[in-house]
Amino acid sequence: MTASSLDALFAPSSVAVIGASDDPARIGGRPLRYLQRGGFAGAVYPINPNRDSVQGIKAWPDVASIPFTVDLAIIALPADQAVQAIRACAARSVKAVILFSAGFAEVGPEGAAMQREIAAIARQSGMRVLGPNCLGVFNTRLGFYGTFAQAFDAAAPQDGPVAIASQSGACGSHLGYLLRQRRVGVNYWITTGNEVDVEVSEALLWLAQAPQVKVIVAYVEAIREGATFIRALAAARANRKPVVMIKVGRSSAGALAAASHTGALVGQDDVYDAVLREYGVHRADSIAELVEIACACARGVLPADRSIGILTLSGGLGVQAADAAERNGLDVRPLAAPGQAKIKSLISFAGTGNPIDITAQATNEATLTGRCIDIALTDGGYQSLVCLLSTIPAAPRFADPILASLVELRARFPDRLIVLAFASPPEVVQRFEDAGFPVFEDQDAAIRTIAALVGFGERFAAVRQAAPLPLAQAPQSLPAVLDEHAAKGILARAGIPVLQDYLVADGAAARRAAAAIDAAVALKIVSPDIAHKTEIGGVVLGVRTPEAAERETTALLQRVAQRAPGARISGVLVSPMLSHGVEAICGSFTDPVFGPVVMFGLGGIHVEVMRDVAHQLAPFGESEALAMIGRIRGHKLLQGMRGAPPSDLAALARALSQLSQFAASHRNTVAEIDINPFVVLPQGQGGYALDALIVPHSNPQETPK
Amino acid sequence: MTASSLDALFAPSSVAVIGASDDPARIGGRPLRYLQRGGFAGAVYPINPNRDSVQGIKAWPDVASIPFTVDLAIIALPADQAVQAIRACAARSVKAVILFSAGFAEVGPEGAAMQREIAAIARQSGMRVLGPNCLGVFNTRLGFYGTFAQAFDAAAPQDGPVAIASQSGACGSHLGYLLRQRRVGVNYWITTGNEVDVEVSEALLWLAQAPQVKVIVAYVEAIREGATFIRALAAARANRKPVVMIKVGRSSAGALAAASHTGALVGQDDVYDAVLREYGVHRADSIAELVEIACACARGVLPADRSIGILTLSGGLGVQAADAAERNGLDVRPLAAPGQAKIKSLISFAGTGNPIDITAQATNEATLTGRCIDIALTDGGYQSLVCLLSTIPAAPRFADPILASLVELRARFPDRLIVLAFASPPEVVQRFEDAGFPVFEDQDAAIRTIAALVGFGERFAAVRQAAPLPLAQAPQSLPAVLDEHAAKGILARAGIPVLQDYLVADGAAARRAAAAIDAAVALKIVSPDIAHKTEIGGVVLGVRTPEAAERETTALLQRVAQRAPGARISGVLVSPMLSHGVEAICGSFTDPVFGPVVMFGLGGIHVEVMRDVAHQLAPFGESEALAMIGRIRGHKLLQGMRGAPPSDLAALARALSQLSQFAASHRNTVAEIDINPFVVLPQGQGGYALDALIVPHSNPQETPK
Repeated sequence: MTASSLDALFAPSSVAVIGASDDPARIGGRPLRYLQRGGFAGAVYPINPNRDSVQGIKAWPDVASIPFTVDLAIIALPADQAVQAIRACAARSVKAVILFSAGFAEVGPEGAAMQREIAAIARQSGMRVLGPNCLGVFNTRLGFYGTFAQAFDAAAPQDGPVAIASQSGACGSHLGYLLRQRRVGVNYWITTGNEVDVEVSEALLWLAQAPQVKVIVAYVEAIREGATFIRALAAARANRKPVVMIKVGRSSAGALAAASHTGALVGQDDVYDAVLREYGVHRADSIAELVEIACACARGVLPADRSIGILTLSGGLGVQAADAAERNGLDVRPLAAPGQAKIKSLISFAGTGNPIDITAQATNEATLTGRCIDIALTDGGYQSLVCLLSTIPAAPRFADPILASLVELRARFPDRLIVLAFASPPEVVQRFEDAGFPVFEDQDAAIRTIAALVGFGERFAAVRQAAPLPLAQAPQSLPAVLDEHAAKGILARAGIPVLQDYLVADGAAARRAAAAIDAAVALKIVSPDIAHKTEIGGVVLGVRTPEAAERETTALLQRVAQRAPGARISGVLVSPMLSHGVEAICGSFTDPVFGPVVMFGLGGIHVEVMRDVAHQLAPFGESEALAMIGRIRGHKLLQGMRGAPPSDLAALARALSQLSQFAASHRNTVAEIDINPFVVLPQGQGGYALDALIVPHSNPQETPK
Repeated sequence: MTASSLDALFAPSSVAVIGASDDPARIGGRPLRYLQRGGFAGAVYPINPNRDSVQGIKAWPDVASIPFTVDLAIIALPADQAVQAIRACAARSVKAVILFSAGFAEVGPEGAAMQREIAAIARQSGMRVLGPNCLGVFNTRLGFYGTFAQAFDAAAPQDGPVAIASQSGACGSHLGYLLRQRRVGVNYWITTGNEVDVEVSEALLWLAQAPQVKVIVAYVEAIREGATFIRALAAARANRKPVVMIKVGRSSAGALAAASHTGALVGQDDVYDAVLREYGVHRADSIAELVEIACACARGVLPADRSIGILTLSGGLGVQAADAAERNGLDVRPLAAPGQAKIKSLISFAGTGNPIDITAQATNEATLTGRCIDIALTDGGYQSLVCLLSTIPAAPRFADPILASLVELRARFPDRLIVLAFASPPEVVQRFEDAGFPVFEDQDAAIRTIAALVGFGERFAAVRQAAPLPLAQAPQSLPAVLDEHAAKGILARAGIPVLQDYLVADGAAARRAAAAIDAAVALKIVSPDIAHKTEIGGVVLGVRTPEAAERETTALLQRVAQRAPGARISGVLVSPMLSHGVEAICGSFTDPVFGPVVMFGLGGIHVEVMRDVAHQLAPFGESEALAMIGRIRGHKLLQGMRGAPPSDLAALARALSQLSQFAASHRNTVAEIDINPFVVLPQGQGGYALDALIVPHSNPQETPK
């Protein structure tokens, strides 16, 4: 399926409404009313076997009897009549169908069966089906309204740069309402409901490629097709379109119990976080944040760097804003000296660093604020400027000159982001917003939004430099028995350093192995039947001499024979121990939607107790691996805290990148990899996988792409 | 100073305005206009030597010539004339003065000198002085406006249950404006500016005791008098008045570099956090959050427990709300079975657990929403209920029946908190708010606010049970030399368990000490001149036999003599080592505002790298100590993770409580205590301070109370 197969859904030239009602308040009547109100220029064919015309438009008894091409059919029928109608549409070569009806998979097995039938029709005919249980689509520019959403009853949406894609109809119409309330236009709007065929990922891909769309707002509950979702996000990023998204389910991530395998240490939500971060999506925590950022993207520009000037009428508001800017990673650099002097010459008591505190003087002289904003932009070079105006725009004698100077300054500095924070009656706020300036009553929200826009700017700039990562590794075929020894061999061939170890059958061989290693060794039983080696005395650590290795191996084999009498024994693994370095845990697991994901954390309590873990979709390069390492809270431990030498971060990053490439090239055979510990030695000394586990897919056919 | 000394400031019966202007737009004219507009019933005496009347009121040439009592004088003069005016007021026995003028300590040494002069006059006369550099006071009920704040130009404040106290004038008037915009009344409002005499803490204390005040909103930059601040917060809590506060400076806390002493490990901000948490204040992160919670406190009730019902028109909105409720620690318990059945009987496809999803059916039948809210309250027993109504109240045919049923239900369930989340035109929102229901456009904000109100409810209930903690310990006098041995002795007498150690002079004595200890020992040089023992080879750990102790002690003394030739040597400390248990760090330090504060964290990386630390004002009891232990992120490590036995939390809590009592009773002599490590043994085995440092105050006179 390509994105263009949604053309008929987003921009049909002819629309049939099956179940059309003459009552414009009913579900089957509302789309007709909206289409007429919107001035839709395409053909409209109401289908109603009982009437000659519906809402003044000639009606047809069924879709088969329409003698013209039908791009799109809207089905406003009860669920039990919908399958029949869909079949008729497919027979008539309709390109796409919107199915409003509820009563399918969401209500029980009978509905699910009907839904499967619809899916089969769509698959066989190539006709795209949106829904069921959805609120449909609209395209403001065309005046096309394939929806019965109540939210557009009172007033039609305005055209504009924002597109909305939502899995939930109610959330989609809620978001549409909020944007219209803020007078930010929406050009495309789609809700996907039960997703029998068209998925939100495909809609996002279409919107990412649609030239009129400048900003994408998305509400997502669960993604079915990870690959399309990622294609859509990559396309939006390549086209410099900010994507602001609510992905529900964040809190359940924390509830997962700790477990021994890395796959169980992660909630699905962490993977979404990793995907959204990687593709530069802003994941909003609330509808308010989503709407604030989307509106600012629509009105503002994406600043070129993190510098922010804070202009304030009050020291107190300024301190809070500087706090918030620091918290959000913005650069509150001081105003350059010539600018400070200019401010001082206007207001002798002003704070001239940053915040630039022009004090209550601003309420004595109406043009002062505009002149100081000018100085901040001209001499400060700030890419973003937030003006904390308290309540003074409420008075027209202040609002007028401030707005006039802002409009003039924006013409002179078109690439700067100017954001206002003030409280005033709605009509005053509207004047500034309609002139194109984002206005916030809450200055924290203003600064959070600026940081989000800066983030988009940075990520869009970074993507031009990043080269795609070639998959360098050819897949290895996995041996039948994947014990520790075999796993380490496989990883070694994949470029992950391991220390040479020896699988031995008896004490004498262990003695020779220990002599060859010439350092303290660990002895571990290797058996496909023994999962918990330590509990049956199958592990001995810190064995210092070849003689001890022989003695301990003999004893170990005896213990194991007694305590696990039936177990097949591959031998005893003799491996070198490292007395220094920092223990890390590196692993990969297979996300059911997005495929292989690499995780990283520090050993000991960090992963299991503190849940201090970073994730990244495989594969990735060493610079992404370094960024990943920097994301854990405990990353300072690798920089040489408390007198310890700094760790070999380059070696760790290389190993993580190699692991990611291995996981990616083995996505069809390997389900999970657990390297625990990977010991990171001091800078220049490398790092080594000391123990490893590779879990193959139990059913290789079912692995995600 | 008692709170009642502010009576003349908040509720004067006669007011002189020094520097009164006939122009009602000027600083000296605005208070007169506001007083007349507000219908102030007390006497008003404009002072203006050049006019017989000002704004129609008889004027006087100076304050001395007024033949009547003057409770309060407002001074609207330039800074250089203010001192003289203040002196005249004191001579005339004026009870309180409001000094608007800027140009004092905030502009330089000359201004600071004038400010000191004013402070001296206030101290000598007992006349209270508010300001300088402040926006003054108002009392809505009396119509008393001792302010020139521009924010009240367009409309006078409404009376109501909220009081506002702010150190910043601009923030105070901004907050006043926002509350009026939301039609929430403010009865008292005060801004304290440079605080030459009246501090925001005293204002808070007065407001905490004023019967009309139900909710206190505060904006604080820095507290000068910790004791008064705490008295104020305790009084508010005792009187069940929610305090919602912005305390600026949160982000700078994280910037403090790690250091070896506990005192340096804390930002002042952590202490504020500890104080505000202890006294049940809600610390808001933004003005938006502050205003939301204050308005909800003014309109709503404080729920009796954490149970919340979520009623929604949309599954998507419901999932997000359930996420948010979980994140905020609310209890999203399912609706009881009879209630579920009733909902099902109304809407067959409804989600009946919790969220209660009444689906888009609600848009087909206007009374359905109200009936379902009734079932949720009646059968759910939820103490809080949030109704996610999307945009449907925008249509009057829905708004009317929903509002009618809400009003009826509130009468039946007066102790339940009912909060609404929907988007609609302002006039619709206003109807619901004016009927007393908090309305939020953003449901996350709604739930955050409910959680804040539940928090107040819980803390007000808890305070009735908590008995004040008697200070059981009599202060010990500190020895001249406070080395490790002495410090451990002092702490042992304070009830903190230490292991018996021995200070010895030579190898032979060390041998006898090690034999007496009969376990592995540590050897440490003790010298008032050696701060970094390890670096000069002054520490040997893990010495296993008495013979080794003798040998190592002799060698240690030789090394120290070579490497630190001039140092005075008290001896070598022979102390037992513990091979198991969890290492903690317990300490206390002296906050310049709030006095002794106890800190707690786990040893190793937890405090220094992860900054995982809890704080509590000293003194406190064992239950507070347990809560403090639970606040660190790594507290699970004490519960027996990874096969380790659970730690003796009771012993740790006892030690922390004893430490807090010691720190409190020695506040005049001890600046800092550092117990590192305090080893917590498995349950039932106790815990021991293995090393300790006590730092006395360098200047005992300057210690805070």
